[in-house]
Amino acid sequence: MSRKVAIIGVGNSKFGVRDDALLQEIAFEAVKEALEDAGITQKEIELSVVGSVGTRMYEALPAVPVNEYAGFSGVGPIRVEAACATGSAAVFTAYNAIASGYVDVAIAIGVEKMCEVDTPTSTAVGGRGGNYLWEFHMFGTSFACYYAFYATAHMNKFGTTEEQLAMVAVKNHKYASMNPKAHFQREIKLEDALKSRIICWPLKLYDCCPISDGAAAAILASEDKVKEFRIEDPVWIAGIGYASDTSNIVRRPDYVGLSATVKAANMAYKKAGVEPKDVEVAEVHDCFTIAEIMAYEDLGFCKKGEGGKLIKEGQTYIGGRIPVNVDGGLKAKGHPLGATGVSMIYELTRQLRNEGGKRQVPLKKYIALAHNIGGTGHYGYVTILRR
Amino acid sequence: MSRKVAIIGVGNSKFGVRDDALLQEIAFEAVKEALEDAGITQKEIELSVVGSVGTRMYEALPAVPVNEYAGFSGVGPIRVEAACATGSAAVFTAYNAIASGYVDVAIAIGVEKMCEVDTPTSTAVGGRGGNYLWEFHMFGTSFACYYAFYATAHMNKFGTTEEQLAMVAVKNHKYASMNPKAHFQREIKLEDALKSRIICWPLKLYDCCPISDGAAAAILASEDKVKEFRIEDPVWIAGIGYASDTSNIVRRPDYVGLSATVKAANMAYKKAGVEPKDVEVAEVHDCFTIAEIMAYEDLGFCKKGEGGKLIKEGQTYIGGRIPVNVDGGLKAKGHPLGATGVSMIYELTRQLRNEGGKRQVPLKKYIALAHNIGGTGHYGYVTILRR
Repeated sequence: MSRKVAIIGVGNSKFGVRDDALLQEIAFEAVKEALEDAGITQKEIELSVVGSVGTRMYEALPAVPVNEYAGFSGVGPIRVEAACATGSAAVFTAYNAIASGYVDVAIAIGVEKMCEVDTPTSTAVGGRGGNYLWEFHMFGTSFACYYAFYATAHMNKFGTTEEQLAMVAVKNHKYASMNPKAHFQREIKLEDALKSRIICWPLKLYDCCPISDGAAAAILASEDKVKEFRIEDPVWIAGIGYASDTSNIVRRPDYVGLSATVKAANMAYKKAGVEPKDVEVAEVHDCFTIAEIMAYEDLGFCKKGEGGKLIKEGQTYIGGRIPVNVDGGLKAKGHPLGATGVSMIYELTRQLRNEGGKRQVPLKKYIALAHNIGGTGHYGYVTILRR
Repeated sequence: MSRKVAIIGVGNSKFGVRDDALLQEIAFEAVKEALEDAGITQKEIELSVVGSVGTRMYEALPAVPVNEYAGFSGVGPIRVEAACATGSAAVFTAYNAIASGYVDVAIAIGVEKMCEVDTPTSTAVGGRGGNYLWEFHMFGTSFACYYAFYATAHMNKFGTTEEQLAMVAVKNHKYASMNPKAHFQREIKLEDALKSRIICWPLKLYDCCPISDGAAAAILASEDKVKEFRIEDPVWIAGIGYASDTSNIVRRPDYVGLSATVKAANMAYKKAGVEPKDVEVAEVHDCFTIAEIMAYEDLGFCKKGEGGKLIKEGQTYIGGRIPVNVDGGLKAKGHPLGATGVSMIYELTRQLRNEGGKRQVPLKKYIALAHNIGGTGHYGYVTILRR
């Protein structure tokens, strides 16, 4: 029924503390690269979907200046938000507008500027990632605290260790050090991660992703336009799965995995007609190291409870069974909320085109998976790409 | 190419100052009515799209509690925002997800709670409806001020009068007094409107819509599901047009109409295969009275410059050539930002089913149009329905 939809151009700004640029300027860095990558100009874009959580309340309507500055003043009728999964929601929205036949070419722009001090601060907004009235306001639960619940439950049930959590950080910093667009450009040592200060036990400073500014963009097109633009060997969106979960964490049956990941993954695998073992490279949502370990399991890369073992064995490094976050992940590439999901598509599109350089994952089937979570599994997206 | 999409159920909460209910409770009023109207339960809904501008920063992620409370915890992966056109953006997003074949049944929920005092206030957020950095922050332009630019230009070029502006308010209050869900339940007199205090000349208090709380919901379904649910005589989405415009008002060529309306209308008319003269009942975006007069013209209900004459002749009353805002409009029904566009669909769906009661517009062709603007034409949507 649906029309096929391809990714024909991708762009990614430098992630980090971007005091040098306005929101719209950061977005345009990504847009410009995506347009040049696709070999088209703004006039070919029929729909612009801007993904931004809008953590800076002073710019209450972030899509408007972003579209004006990027040259999409006439075709930017929508902003989407799905907390930290906002970027994936933007891609899904652009995808549907093409698959439905409504437009032929759309751009998904993810952008966030979080490092400026505003009220509430980015950290305070993070606390609202659960349920505001009960869990944040009544109990003062911070965002790290929500994931600490999951980490302690996972350690208790499966014997996952603090060392295994730290190993995720070490891997992701290693790859970020090889990615000039990453927020952090340096490797870290396991012992330093373990000695870093406690944020919310068992999560330490090096278990947490940073607060970053940044943007990413992906241009999507129908099959007809792929031919018209003479795009050779495009990357296709094979399937998108989505889910959401209860606002209140206390309403969930357990704390050792995210049902939003499981549901979104099942939907995406089914739509794409592939299985977990077919995936050759993945971007997963590692806002905290425990999140990456749970994702391994919930996405079916290993059995439930064996995520700690997977990282300990090095299976998620390049050369391992399933390389994960070879761009540095949220943990070390950075996590500008709205940009993250689109940035995953940026990395995977380049991997599928064998443009990964020294971070290139060897591919045979050319199937890649992006996993993007909002809040503590309040939102979940899994997007499967193939060449 | 696209699949046909029907509206099979609609709901609308009471609009007004809703100190009695939380955001999610107001949303559920609309959701419950829509489910009952369609004769289905939550388990049939595959996708929930929540439209909310999120003017209350303390609930930074409004879709999460709204979906939890309404019973859509698993299927609410996305919030959309398009300023005051947010409700239409939600309908468009839900439409595309069905037209693309991704899902068969989706709900668009529009909700806003604006009357609570928060930082920034709703009025301060309104000022950001232009360009924050230049026009709001540098010049202190308020939202009423943006529309006052348009009103003075329209008066100067076409001789539109303050009396004609006030006539729009009189009409919309009349119909609101017949609508139990409207914020204002009383008629007003022309002389009182003209004597009301100046907000930003020529706009007076009675030229401005109020700040309201409220919600609306619309359930959309594919043709297959319409048959499966045995929906008799559904209302079909015949076409949706969208547009956006420059962030900075100063970048626009003139101030006597909104190009976002013209572009969105042309797109919608073309998609639906109808002309302005075919439209028998319309909801237009009357955040200020001048906005309704410009909409008459920009939608093609009269020639450019003759909007003032159209209201003066009473042509937009029931019984006139093109009845407009017979539910009270934003002006008197109220304007809870995210809810407004969905509430337009609520009213028109009921009109097309001849459920308008004493406000029923006599119909022959059964073609209706909703026109929803975000900011000062920063966003524009036109949605055409037919039975």
